[in-house]
Amino acid sequence: MQECAFNQNPIGIFDSGVGGLSIVKEIRKKIPNESIVYFGDTARVPYGTKSKETITRFAKEDIGFLRSHKVKIIVSACFSVSSNALPELREEFDIPIIDMISPGIEALRDKSYRKIGVIGTNATIESGAFEHELKRNFKNIKIYSTPCPLFVPLAEEGWTNGKVPQLIAEKYLSPLIQKGIESLILGCTHYPLLYSVIRKVVGDEIDIIQPGKEVATLIKKSLQDRGQDSENKGSLQIFLSDIPRGFKRIATQFLGQNPGQIRLAKLSN
Amino acid sequence: MQECAFNQNPIGIFDSGVGGLSIVKEIRKKIPNESIVYFGDTARVPYGTKSKETITRFAKEDIGFLRSHKVKIIVSACFSVSSNALPELREEFDIPIIDMISPGIEALRDKSYRKIGVIGTNATIESGAFEHELKRNFKNIKIYSTPCPLFVPLAEEGWTNGKVPQLIAEKYLSPLIQKGIESLILGCTHYPLLYSVIRKVVGDEIDIIQPGKEVATLIKKSLQDRGQDSENKGSLQIFLSDIPRGFKRIATQFLGQNPGQIRLAKLSN
Repeated sequence: MQECAFNQNPIGIFDSGVGGLSIVKEIRKKIPNESIVYFGDTARVPYGTKSKETITRFAKEDIGFLRSHKVKIIVSACFSVSSNALPELREEFDIPIIDMISPGIEALRDKSYRKIGVIGTNATIESGAFEHELKRNFKNIKIYSTPCPLFVPLAEEGWTNGKVPQLIAEKYLSPLIQKGIESLILGCTHYPLLYSVIRKVVGDEIDIIQPGKEVATLIKKSLQDRGQDSENKGSLQIFLSDIPRGFKRIATQFLGQNPGQIRLAKLSN
Repeated sequence: MQECAFNQNPIGIFDSGVGGLSIVKEIRKKIPNESIVYFGDTARVPYGTKSKETITRFAKEDIGFLRSHKVKIIVSACFSVSSNALPELREEFDIPIIDMISPGIEALRDKSYRKIGVIGTNATIESGAFEHELKRNFKNIKIYSTPCPLFVPLAEEGWTNGKVPQLIAEKYLSPLIQKGIESLILGCTHYPLLYSVIRKVVGDEIDIIQPGKEVATLIKKSLQDRGQDSENKGSLQIFLSDIPRGFKRIATQFLGQNPGQIRLAKLSN
């Protein structure tokens, strides 16, 4: 009975804003029967420009909110959180927390690449989290990373193809291509929306890693391992700390479907 | 004695982030003897994507902080605050608050334009604040407005000239130019950094209004009217609610000089 109740508990996902809905999309595609509670801290988005201390404090509050919804596992969909705050969060909370860094690293195992490109927000790139984990896991590897701050507003504007995104992608990615990268990690929840323009710019030879897809695969495997495959159709509840203008349009782009009813969740501070 | 102490009190300026430093630059250029206390709410930037209620709540906290520094006048350098929260702020606080909307409107008086373009963040444009004030002040006027979300990261990246900003500016501004606007209001603190590319795209015939310059003129006049012209060299104190990465570089771009020592100011919540 206890086990069954646990099975039906939802997966909790939090992000600084709406970007994490691109991860929700991948999870729902792979394990549609699981229920999901999503919290987007839209009142304080973005985290990517903030300090490590502030990012950690915000993330603790986000996780506190999800725990009040009795989630069985937590996905830190925010790369800025995943690359700045994970050790402290795992020390504080006794619930499994999936980050956005490790699953992308796992996807590269057995591929024997020597040159990896990493793109993300300023905070993710400057944290060096991908670089650190890549070097810890693979020997004799070279990493070339660059922040792409304009990709986020491009995705949110819906400018995902045409001359402007292509020129911007060329400006950011050409230096990495020239270094001869064999794989490119899209280290931000917004970047999958620009997948086709990124693919066009890097060409067909470069292996593009989308961590959201890897996270979904990892959760599916993890729940099967524990025998927690649910048979009910999963629900999706979306909570935001602020309802921003134009949210429905942006959420629909990220989620690939209408987000349904959105609820406002005020954090304690 | 009372009067003299009041004279020496600083001007208080707040913004959601670092953009308001472009207004500080204009004020220091026009009245260099006045001291300034700046508060940038970098822990919660940007305000532009947030709801009217959240923007108002944040602005009240920002003003509370400035008042603790005994400022004699407050500039709401944030257009999102100026276009969403001013009536409530003026009702709550008994100190003069200069907004970013009215001074730009004043600059258009006696010019007899019939078609005005307005650009800004989503929140500023969707609030309709410029449109409302323009229509209240001028008869038979047509207003064409558009949000330009990519201008902010362009300014912060320092991509202020070249092909990328020009294409983006063309994409945003061409519809306004085609409508035959005679003047264009730059309704965001970040946009003056893109002045030269905007000028290039709109041509020489369109009168570009920069509210920061108008605010500086208004403060100068207001202080002279009250006989408060200070003779001492003014100081600049910058407080931020978070010290974001790369702040010094960005602040220097906006301020046109090294920002000096930055202090962290935690708001009560």
